[in-house]
Amino acid sequence: MYNINRNYLKLPGSYLFSTIGRKSREYQSTHPEADVISLGIGDVTQPLAPAIIKALHEAVDDMAHAETFHGYSPDLGYSWLRETIAKNDYEDRNCDVTADEIFISDGAKSDSGNIQEIFAQNQRIAVCDPVYPVYVDSNVMAGRCGTYDKAAERWSDVIYMPCTADNGFTPSFPKEDPDIIYLCYPNNPTGASITKERLQDWVDYANRIGAVIIYDAAYEAYISDSEVPHSIYECEGARTCAIEIRSFSKNAGFTGTRLGFTVIPKEIERDGVKLHSLWARRHGTKFNGAPYIVQKAAMAVYSEEGKAELKEQIGYYKRNCRVIMDGLKEAGYDVYGGVDAPYIWLKTPGHMTSWEFFDRLLSHANVVGTPGSGFGPSGEGYFRLTAFGSYENTKEAVRRIARM
Amino acid sequence: MYNINRNYLKLPGSYLFSTIGRKSREYQSTHPEADVISLGIGDVTQPLAPAIIKALHEAVDDMAHAETFHGYSPDLGYSWLRETIAKNDYEDRNCDVTADEIFISDGAKSDSGNIQEIFAQNQRIAVCDPVYPVYVDSNVMAGRCGTYDKAAERWSDVIYMPCTADNGFTPSFPKEDPDIIYLCYPNNPTGASITKERLQDWVDYANRIGAVIIYDAAYEAYISDSEVPHSIYECEGARTCAIEIRSFSKNAGFTGTRLGFTVIPKEIERDGVKLHSLWARRHGTKFNGAPYIVQKAAMAVYSEEGKAELKEQIGYYKRNCRVIMDGLKEAGYDVYGGVDAPYIWLKTPGHMTSWEFFDRLLSHANVVGTPGSGFGPSGEGYFRLTAFGSYENTKEAVRRIARM
Repeated sequence: MYNINRNYLKLPGSYLFSTIGRKSREYQSTHPEADVISLGIGDVTQPLAPAIIKALHEAVDDMAHAETFHGYSPDLGYSWLRETIAKNDYEDRNCDVTADEIFISDGAKSDSGNIQEIFAQNQRIAVCDPVYPVYVDSNVMAGRCGTYDKAAERWSDVIYMPCTADNGFTPSFPKEDPDIIYLCYPNNPTGASITKERLQDWVDYANRIGAVIIYDAAYEAYISDSEVPHSIYECEGARTCAIEIRSFSKNAGFTGTRLGFTVIPKEIERDGVKLHSLWARRHGTKFNGAPYIVQKAAMAVYSEEGKAELKEQIGYYKRNCRVIMDGLKEAGYDVYGGVDAPYIWLKTPGHMTSWEFFDRLLSHANVVGTPGSGFGPSGEGYFRLTAFGSYENTKEAVRRIARM
Repeated sequence: MYNINRNYLKLPGSYLFSTIGRKSREYQSTHPEADVISLGIGDVTQPLAPAIIKALHEAVDDMAHAETFHGYSPDLGYSWLRETIAKNDYEDRNCDVTADEIFISDGAKSDSGNIQEIFAQNQRIAVCDPVYPVYVDSNVMAGRCGTYDKAAERWSDVIYMPCTADNGFTPSFPKEDPDIIYLCYPNNPTGASITKERLQDWVDYANRIGAVIIYDAAYEAYISDSEVPHSIYECEGARTCAIEIRSFSKNAGFTGTRLGFTVIPKEIERDGVKLHSLWARRHGTKFNGAPYIVQKAAMAVYSEEGKAELKEQIGYYKRNCRVIMDGLKEAGYDVYGGVDAPYIWLKTPGHMTSWEFFDRLLSHANVVGTPGSGFGPSGEGYFRLTAFGSYENTKEAVRRIARM
């Protein structure tokens, strides 16, 4: 008689975005005249850049003729794309990463959810608090995190690393040694970045204790500060302890086009087994390559034309960041992030809880954001706004919040 | 200190297609004049149909303008696609499947590899022998299959159901009761199909013993025989025991475009937990939706224009089937499959092993196929040819084999 994976039942309901949705809809239905602006979800709004559109049309035309038709792509991605990434994202930044260490996938969410599979069952993970929920949930589903304490909002076997204004949103090394350390910089949800010096400390720490770092760099395109590394491989020794996950969602607007990649250096090994081989085996068994047309679109991201257009597109969202940062600061808010990341993390005024501020913002300013407590207990008393709206909506939202 | 998932190390090397590749390259390098034709790998060769190309171009244009741009798609797929599938693939065949029981994914390989995750660790799986390797390998990676006996080519905890000419390539119920039964019809690699009556027996058996059937129907578009069901939901009682996996790869040439779907009826539940909810949770945590442009392309598969063009495309491959079947029969071969499936399964002549026949075919006819033993011990003495080549190559390959 078949039985289910009971680890799934341990997961608390994923209430954050559904509660946001319900509350927004309820407000809108009782206030049909209200023009509600959402700076909540981290989805882009600008269209794909012209160079990418052109590449997509050309790739579609390739698929229309037997001579240029493309069937199954290589499981790990087309070599022309892997080489282009190696050159642009790594060689040009003096990072030692080769094309065959790059695994093309359908996105950073899949990779960050699936990567735990190649590790042993008894692994102890460490995550920042607040955190992107996929890191923890995917480990819970695999039976790794112990039991959930609903009141404390914590798993018994997860090591939490609080990130608050007090530590500048960069965690200290945990008291207990973890096996797997998830780091996301620039950070979702706090918008904080990490200096190369501080990231080097983490790499040294991981090498010292024999841990692996899963480094989610999905937002690197938003980095403004020259002290902030774009890749963990800018640090010495990262090749023996760090896996890096990248996305085309936020640098090129691929949230609905789907593409990402993961780097696993061949030097990371345990008992003579390379993590690189394990991940290759996973790709070969449970994945059948990313679409040809989407991989072609990614090539345009690295063309001269594409780079120029995307610089402008990211500039558009970064201008939104400044509008939010400047407007809220002027209105007396404590605001964080927003310089190297598309997220603005603000302290709720007057000791309001994150949800109290959500309700107030919705009813008094008709603006929707994301309560910080939804990302973990240390997010309580904070609130996330994103820069991915249109410029006009962003300006209007800030005007309303300031007036509130 | 991190540790690896040692279940991965139990997997024998995946030598089948790499050995085929190496042998083909070696032959070609010592015989540069030889015009080697491959009927080996199950990849399509015909371009995407004009209706699909048109839909892709239109969807790309949507992505070029803010008003029609599409960011994150719903995790489970766009409702317009799920409803279209429910209507065309199920309602029109009198199958009771609703749109919200359909989960859109990036392909049948991902789904058939990932589906085991929602089941308990101690599950006993049953597979046909020969078999598509993903069903077993994905369970091995999850630690389910016991130990591998290299000589016998069998896992200690897997229930094998031999499929040979003696039983018409349809297995008998196993002596031990499995928890999860993988069935693939029309079958890869044997090309066999199953009658509705016989499939009903399997559904009744699964319901009786409390097993779940994972029904891989990736090749249903090739069914010619009206007695052969296109979906397991044509059988009574399938809604309480069967998950169905479908692909756009072989009916619409999406091997390099990537799209598939899985159906989980809401009636399959254990201890009050619906498998539907577990799979939805997995999609929500480890997947971020299939590309908008690809989902739009799938809509064209169901348009009047698309249906007509794809009927012709499948007809093209089915003509290849007949060329192979007729030509080999006439040359004295015992051939199977090829009527309801794009695969032809032949008995090697003169008691040759599958690999002996491979070598002979390569050197004497310059044709590459797939040794049946690569799919499992009961495949020994058989050989797979696919109908996915061009008509000209297929005709020429058959001419050479017949002359051999």
